[in-house]
Amino acid sequence: MQFKFIEGGVAAAEGFTASGVLNKIKASRTTFDTALIFSDALCNAAGVFTQNRVKAECVKFTKNQIADGKAQAVIMNSGNANACTGAQGYENARKEADAVASRLKIDAGNVLVCSTGVIGQQLPVEKILNGLDESVAKLSKTGNVEARQAIMTTDTKYKEVALETEIGGKNVRMGTMAKGSGMIHINLGTMLSVVTTDCAISAEMLEKALKKSVAGTYNCVSVDGDTSTNDTLLILANGMAGNAEIVSEGAEFDAFCEALDTLNTQMAKKIAADGEGATRLVTCNVVGADNVENARGLAKAVICSNLVKAAFFGADANWGRILDAMGYSGFFFTPEKTSVSFLSREGAKRYFDDGDVNGGKENSIKVFDHGVPLNFDEEKAKKILLEEAVEILVELEDGSAKGTAWGCDLTYDYVKINGDYRT
Amino acid sequence: MQFKFIEGGVAAAEGFTASGVLNKIKASRTTFDTALIFSDALCNAAGVFTQNRVKAECVKFTKNQIADGKAQAVIMNSGNANACTGAQGYENARKEADAVASRLKIDAGNVLVCSTGVIGQQLPVEKILNGLDESVAKLSKTGNVEARQAIMTTDTKYKEVALETEIGGKNVRMGTMAKGSGMIHINLGTMLSVVTTDCAISAEMLEKALKKSVAGTYNCVSVDGDTSTNDTLLILANGMAGNAEIVSEGAEFDAFCEALDTLNTQMAKKIAADGEGATRLVTCNVVGADNVENARGLAKAVICSNLVKAAFFGADANWGRILDAMGYSGFFFTPEKTSVSFLSREGAKRYFDDGDVNGGKENSIKVFDHGVPLNFDEEKAKKILLEEAVEILVELEDGSAKGTAWGCDLTYDYVKINGDYRT
Repeated sequence: MQFKFIEGGVAAAEGFTASGVLNKIKASRTTFDTALIFSDALCNAAGVFTQNRVKAECVKFTKNQIADGKAQAVIMNSGNANACTGAQGYENARKEADAVASRLKIDAGNVLVCSTGVIGQQLPVEKILNGLDESVAKLSKTGNVEARQAIMTTDTKYKEVALETEIGGKNVRMGTMAKGSGMIHINLGTMLSVVTTDCAISAEMLEKALKKSVAGTYNCVSVDGDTSTNDTLLILANGMAGNAEIVSEGAEFDAFCEALDTLNTQMAKKIAADGEGATRLVTCNVVGADNVENARGLAKAVICSNLVKAAFFGADANWGRILDAMGYSGFFFTPEKTSVSFLSREGAKRYFDDGDVNGGKENSIKVFDHGVPLNFDEEKAKKILLEEAVEILVELEDGSAKGTAWGCDLTYDYVKINGDYRT
Repeated sequence: MQFKFIEGGVAAAEGFTASGVLNKIKASRTTFDTALIFSDALCNAAGVFTQNRVKAECVKFTKNQIADGKAQAVIMNSGNANACTGAQGYENARKEADAVASRLKIDAGNVLVCSTGVIGQQLPVEKILNGLDESVAKLSKTGNVEARQAIMTTDTKYKEVALETEIGGKNVRMGTMAKGSGMIHINLGTMLSVVTTDCAISAEMLEKALKKSVAGTYNCVSVDGDTSTNDTLLILANGMAGNAEIVSEGAEFDAFCEALDTLNTQMAKKIAADGEGATRLVTCNVVGADNVENARGLAKAVICSNLVKAAFFGADANWGRILDAMGYSGFFFTPEKTSVSFLSREGAKRYFDDGDVNGGKENSIKVFDHGVPLNFDEEKAKKILLEEAVEILVELEDGSAKGTAWGCDLTYDYVKINGDYRT
């Protein structure tokens, strides 16, 4: 696929605008906390949602709203998750949707609502309603800059990416933003994330593309093993690129999926790299597995292990913990035919704005070869592991399937952010 | 069951002796690192072992040794796990068994071998063999004091308990010791643990009792979600109490199981309380579940959550994270009929030598009632949560099944112990 990364995030695609305002949902907040995304044209839409049995009220509401495959606006807030808030919480989500629809003169059934923040407190919905005139007035093609900020909680960096490609002979744009940080785990929709595109594609194919993409991207990220009550990934396609609507599988659907995978993979990396307290991005690539499920399962087990994560904080080439995690994962591999290496590029940054991890010369060191520990240069290993973006390469000889998972290290700051109210 | 706790640990039962010696398996070690347990009479024996696909060589060896249901001695070392060491590692375990058998003049097929420590380095077996004369010479009824020390790694306290009860009209003694600390997770045999008893019971019933007991004790403990390569729980019964051998289910088997559960529950608590870096023991009791599997599954999910664990470090009454963990666990419950309370006893100690958590007045506070957040006294909650042994009580109305799981908080010291080699 030929494509280029572009500016504009969720407002990059034709017909989409966005805004961010500060409604003081949390009294101490000083940056925007409410994002609005709007499409001039009605969109086909799809979503994936948390698999947690405890679902936030806004998740229940938005699942109902999107069931018809249509949407035109998304309102999102940080500072309050509207979770464990019962009937009143559900009603508050509806109030938001009704008010947004009335201001934008669209059908109330086409407004989606997302929240993130503290669990168990009623959403101060009046604050959001009072700020709505400003939210609507500020909608613009550069409003992505405000919107991406408005959904951040303990995130230290905004997460956004957009690209342009050709589908069906037309220029198609696709953009996304997300919040990540804590309560991030595989087997979720994701945290809050929205993808917008001007590609013409049916709601049915949109949902198919989304589910396919999530399996190898958002569902391969873990920060702390917690699947939140609010995880939501939405995609809105308004068709304004003018391509013939994609209604079945084929070359154009494949191109669409590739574009979507490209965005979601970038976002997965950004979310892992900015995990709460993280000092480095840890990528685990498993190759030579007997099938994709095993490859991904093994990679996920490695990046989910607290012991592996703590070892990476210390830049310790502790391959034993990697083997141990693979061993208890329940996914098949042959220990005697397993090799493990560590790789990094000099100067690679865990944060990257150009769509990938870059840096100087690639260094690698093999530490375990066909089931046998190697005597390796510990100084060299430490140098590799001290980079901000590090890869664990697990080479199996059970087949030809590959899988990748993204995580981060476990640090004092993770404990501080989530536990230490005494200092 | 009438019983009393007694001294003597693994040497408490009639006919059992133990010892500990320092073989410098790890050069820096200053306390004992090799334990030997011996029974005057041949024992019926059973074991449960790690379910990790990567099994230490000593685990593979000992599984083979115990397959006939017989054993008479156990040699255990800390400082080296003999894991990922291939054919040479297996041969080293055999060398140990052969040498022990020769010294003790018993059948080499009746010696079990356990190791714990670093993964991926060959066991310095000569050091253990050179120390064997001393190991055998020191065998005594008070040698449990040395043996329990010899298997400690990052443990800060030894784990040992013994009791005496009456079975089949005879006094029966049962004792145990274990190492815990890190790489502790449910669905394992356990870390290294040995139970000895003078009760007469067939190998078949011994295995049945062990598996039944483990499900509600060792398999309900988690420190960090990692199942190690070396987890082993062994039980040896030499029959010297003189009761009629237990060969089927019935009152005597039930009494045996109750005694075993009592010991294993104590050990589970001790292991959780002494988790790496832990400052408090966290017990989660789930009542009113529709079946035991769900009750235990929910309790385990709560004590395994990094976010719950970090909140307990901060003595933060964050019930949202508890609901969240239950929600993603995959185990059934009805959120709308769920209530959550925190309980503790004033002055309770997470370490306890009398078999249970003791202390002054019990305090409790309900924070979530039938799906609805309560406005609770945060000062009172903090006071309760600052105790060293804290209970989460989850009350469901889905049935009458109960389940308990034990864990600890996630602290700076966990990260330090496992990751920070830079300070």
